[in-house]
Amino acid sequence: MARIVMKFGGTSVADLDRIHNVARHVKREVEAGHEVAVVVSAMSGKTNELVGWVQNMPKVTGASSPFYDAREYDAIVASGELVTAGLLAIALQSMGIDARSWQGWQIPIRTDNAHGAARILDIDGAEMIRRMGTGQVAVVAGFQGLGPDNRVATLGRGGSDTSAVAIAAAVKADRCDIYTDVDGVYTTDPRIEPKARRLKKIAFEEMLEMASLGAKVLQVRSVELAMVHKVRTFVRSSFEDPDAPGMGDLLNPPGTLICDEDEIVEQEVVTGIAYAKDEAQISLRRVADRPGVSAAIFGPLAEAHINVDMIVQNISEDGSKTDMTFTVPFGDVEKALKVLEAAKAQVGFDVIQHETGLVKVSVIGIGMRSHAGVAASAFRALAEKGINIKAITTSEIKISILIDGPYAELAVRTLHSVYGLDKK
Amino acid sequence: MARIVMKFGGTSVADLDRIHNVARHVKREVEAGHEVAVVVSAMSGKTNELVGWVQNMPKVTGASSPFYDAREYDAIVASGELVTAGLLAIALQSMGIDARSWQGWQIPIRTDNAHGAARILDIDGAEMIRRMGTGQVAVVAGFQGLGPDNRVATLGRGGSDTSAVAIAAAVKADRCDIYTDVDGVYTTDPRIEPKARRLKKIAFEEMLEMASLGAKVLQVRSVELAMVHKVRTFVRSSFEDPDAPGMGDLLNPPGTLICDEDEIVEQEVVTGIAYAKDEAQISLRRVADRPGVSAAIFGPLAEAHINVDMIVQNISEDGSKTDMTFTVPFGDVEKALKVLEAAKAQVGFDVIQHETGLVKVSVIGIGMRSHAGVAASAFRALAEKGINIKAITTSEIKISILIDGPYAELAVRTLHSVYGLDKK
Repeated sequence: MARIVMKFGGTSVADLDRIHNVARHVKREVEAGHEVAVVVSAMSGKTNELVGWVQNMPKVTGASSPFYDAREYDAIVASGELVTAGLLAIALQSMGIDARSWQGWQIPIRTDNAHGAARILDIDGAEMIRRMGTGQVAVVAGFQGLGPDNRVATLGRGGSDTSAVAIAAAVKADRCDIYTDVDGVYTTDPRIEPKARRLKKIAFEEMLEMASLGAKVLQVRSVELAMVHKVRTFVRSSFEDPDAPGMGDLLNPPGTLICDEDEIVEQEVVTGIAYAKDEAQISLRRVADRPGVSAAIFGPLAEAHINVDMIVQNISEDGSKTDMTFTVPFGDVEKALKVLEAAKAQVGFDVIQHETGLVKVSVIGIGMRSHAGVAASAFRALAEKGINIKAITTSEIKISILIDGPYAELAVRTLHSVYGLDKK
Repeated sequence: MARIVMKFGGTSVADLDRIHNVARHVKREVEAGHEVAVVVSAMSGKTNELVGWVQNMPKVTGASSPFYDAREYDAIVASGELVTAGLLAIALQSMGIDARSWQGWQIPIRTDNAHGAARILDIDGAEMIRRMGTGQVAVVAGFQGLGPDNRVATLGRGGSDTSAVAIAAAVKADRCDIYTDVDGVYTTDPRIEPKARRLKKIAFEEMLEMASLGAKVLQVRSVELAMVHKVRTFVRSSFEDPDAPGMGDLLNPPGTLICDEDEIVEQEVVTGIAYAKDEAQISLRRVADRPGVSAAIFGPLAEAHINVDMIVQNISEDGSKTDMTFTVPFGDVEKALKVLEAAKAQVGFDVIQHETGLVKVSVIGIGMRSHAGVAASAFRALAEKGINIKAITTSEIKISILIDGPYAELAVRTLHSVYGLDKK
């Protein structure tokens, strides 16, 4: 007997038939004797409809900006998950399975006061655990909790993943299964490299890099939370037949396990190749090389909510001037340039240059900590294909390389092959 | 300065433009210096959509009846009002009016445990009143409260009227305005009698008879509650221009005031003519005239949830046998006949007869308490038009007459004219 948290996203509960299918997945685990909590998102499209209403409220003549109260936004947008939770509870009951829905405030899932992007502070799972112990399935509305102001607070888009992992930690679940429209985490995007393989296991740290770099399977915060609480998290498909062979396997169900690196016995050097499109690079030429200059550049950018990445600093020949180069998302280029021009006096640079249409390709693997030469292999392979490298940053478990956009697919496939990730 | 509760139904909040229009009605009262609470229904069609999902959940092969848990039904169906409440709060804020939404469990509105048709037990309005005192509009999700099981409980269809009156009682409001798609209560259905007049005032007792007899403006329970707590309740239109002259009149806004009879100075003898179509009559011939026979007939019908009305008992010539005649809704006839056949041995009647396609026309007025001859005028007027009377029941403030269906409109117009209700 195990305790399992199962999470189903919007496409998995898009209509009554799919909700019924979800109920079959739950039934399989219940009949295997497990204690089960299920976390659900809103039916696909519903959250967008609700958000659209909030954003399209007619404005009064002479009214201020399209302001709206984040607390009201939360009260409105969180309603979609309540519907799915109730419907799934009914679907389970109609199969003869004891089940009840839980709204965030009923458990309660306590959050901070950051409406619209709240963080979970505490989950009092006592009553839920007691009922799960009697065989009752807990169906929990994802994406939401109860703020200190006694009002509904939402966790931000994709927040149901975070709900699921937080509940798994609170009820000390043996496993948290994230059911989604893909069947696991791949070595790279299979649409670019058909030889991409589904990973059996991936370490939390690796998944964090994969998720934040564009392999958008899980919300980044849910992975952070899983890492902190060591929640063994499975990514698996909700569209497979719930009763297919192996689907109920406790240790090795089909999918990818995200877990502590200690649990990965045969660690590969490189686990996956991620990429992020639409990067732009900004260079400040001949910046005075003095203490505080980095703060003068990046402080104003941070205040303008511009997400800066891949910072590279070159020392100029005479040691008094430096070049500072970094990337920002393409959509933020114009804003960043304005912010920097405004800060020119404080920073003291010569000219600004920028370039758009770039791609960041990243090689990720915990194994590279203990292996030398991983970066050199990448540079050699890209050079052989004639791909020019515009910037490089490295960390303990990641090498990121900035290249021209048109070479993105070629670079991904080249690196995938170099590190032996291709399907046999 | 007054304290006002305003209630808007589904058609009044059907889309963003109408919600904006509702906000203008609220703004008018706020700017007049009143403390305001607003109760809203779900956007028109939303509740039906949610109910449809509950009812159309796919059934498992071999599953039991289309059972569903009323607690889950409530959790799902109550979500529609949460959305409207949040949207109206945002619309008000965008007009520069302080407002916040309240969900049933936040106030809380405490109900009993009868999920799907719960009754309000208690409203702790303290925090809401305090905030209204600071000028903040309380926007309350109608139709719902918090059951003793700490779960959402709904009040049954049309329950937002009841929410509004209960909140008006709890906050000791000076007035409860029910905004709807008609502009008041009429002396009879204007589609049948174009000379029908809008009433300035109607007593609670009269409105109860009007509502339960088919003038479906307000939920019957909300009128009962208003009567018990003496809540002055206005029925008025949400489709009039919010800023038209007189709309903000504190004492005499356009619409119909439902109030204590003491407040109606010049009481007419008859206030209105109501009708109910699709009635059926059942007669049990030669029933043994002994104690307990009524219980033997009507007990089984009540257990079968058949709503019996207009019971007439005639004593037969020799005093040992009686005829028992009563009406039921047309849809219940077959079920009623089966129940009665099954009870034949206990009851001991000779034959059952029944007739369908009947109409009950009712003359309503508190003034008839102190006026003789009201019933006689009705009988005479109907006789002059050749309308045959099949049954009569009377109470202190109502005369109900059962006639053949095709005469319904003629009877309504005849009685409307006889009691001087026609528009001048």
